[in-house]
Amino acid sequence: MIIFVDMDEVMADAYMAHIEIYNQEFNAQLCVEECFGREVWQCVPKEHQKNIKDHTRRIGFFRDLRVIPDSQEVLLELSKKYKVYIASAAMEFPDSLKEKSDWLDLHFPFIPWQNRILCGDKHILKGDVLIDDRSKNLEPFNGRSIMFSSPHNANENSFERAHNWQEIADKLL
Amino acid sequence: MIIFVDMDEVMADAYMAHIEIYNQEFNAQLCVEECFGREVWQCVPKEHQKNIKDHTRRIGFFRDLRVIPDSQEVLLELSKKYKVYIASAAMEFPDSLKEKSDWLDLHFPFIPWQNRILCGDKHILKGDVLIDDRSKNLEPFNGRSIMFSSPHNANENSFERAHNWQEIADKLL
Repeated sequence: MIIFVDMDEVMADAYMAHIEIYNQEFNAQLCVEECFGREVWQCVPKEHQKNIKDHTRRIGFFRDLRVIPDSQEVLLELSKKYKVYIASAAMEFPDSLKEKSDWLDLHFPFIPWQNRILCGDKHILKGDVLIDDRSKNLEPFNGRSIMFSSPHNANENSFERAHNWQEIADKLL
Repeated sequence: MIIFVDMDEVMADAYMAHIEIYNQEFNAQLCVEECFGREVWQCVPKEHQKNIKDHTRRIGFFRDLRVIPDSQEVLLELSKKYKVYIASAAMEFPDSLKEKSDWLDLHFPFIPWQNRILCGDKHILKGDVLIDDRSKNLEPFNGRSIMFSSPHNANENSFERAHNWQEIADKLL
């Protein structure tokens, strides 16, 4: 069985990083509960939105992301049992490519380079399971599409859902 | 129709770059005709082989590769007619990732980031045609596998072959 796993919002906590950087730089108190069902940039005044959208173009943004709880432990077990591939739509941000490779080396060294994919569109992936936080990626996938919960997708209900990595373990291990 | 196109030896001339760097640094006269059926590193004295294998880890190696003749013109026409994706097994060389993205921006700006894939194994690709110089990539592909001629694959005959981009045009346009 081939399992594809998205990085941002599934393995790496980009959402909270956006909020923390914003709060620090604008001396704001945005909290994640205010953001359910929206992107972070949609939750701030119009004049700040471009600033948030540009976080992903900053050197170091992806390198410093925190690991989503339990993703290391569960992915280690999954990778013993199945063919696990990381699939990140990273090509939009060329400076992120090496940072993402380094981040995987650091936090997921058991997933070798052969099993890492940095791409654009994900509908070219051929496999059995896709774990992703975006419906645009899950929708065209031919296999089992599992939506991993992130604040921005709180109101979507078109896909099988996993709220956290323990639920992924329950489903797949 | 979805067409995947490999980069090295198909769009970018890595083979000749290996020879040129080697000849320059070792004051040698290796020529491509001597290399048919072999990798460049297999054509030099044992004590020089590691040097050649390490070319791909040098900063700038992939950035400076020359474009394979007619690839730009034919890929432009193909991309008007079909969904063309670039698929490069680049993850082994993290420093190459941004260089490859920049190289595509420079020489193939008509192929957007959505259609670029930097990966390891290629058997996760779902599409109709794969143009590649390596049998290990062509073999597991489910669709039409076209071997693009490179000095190293001169003696292989398990796949439909294209000797150059004009032959790709004849086959697919």
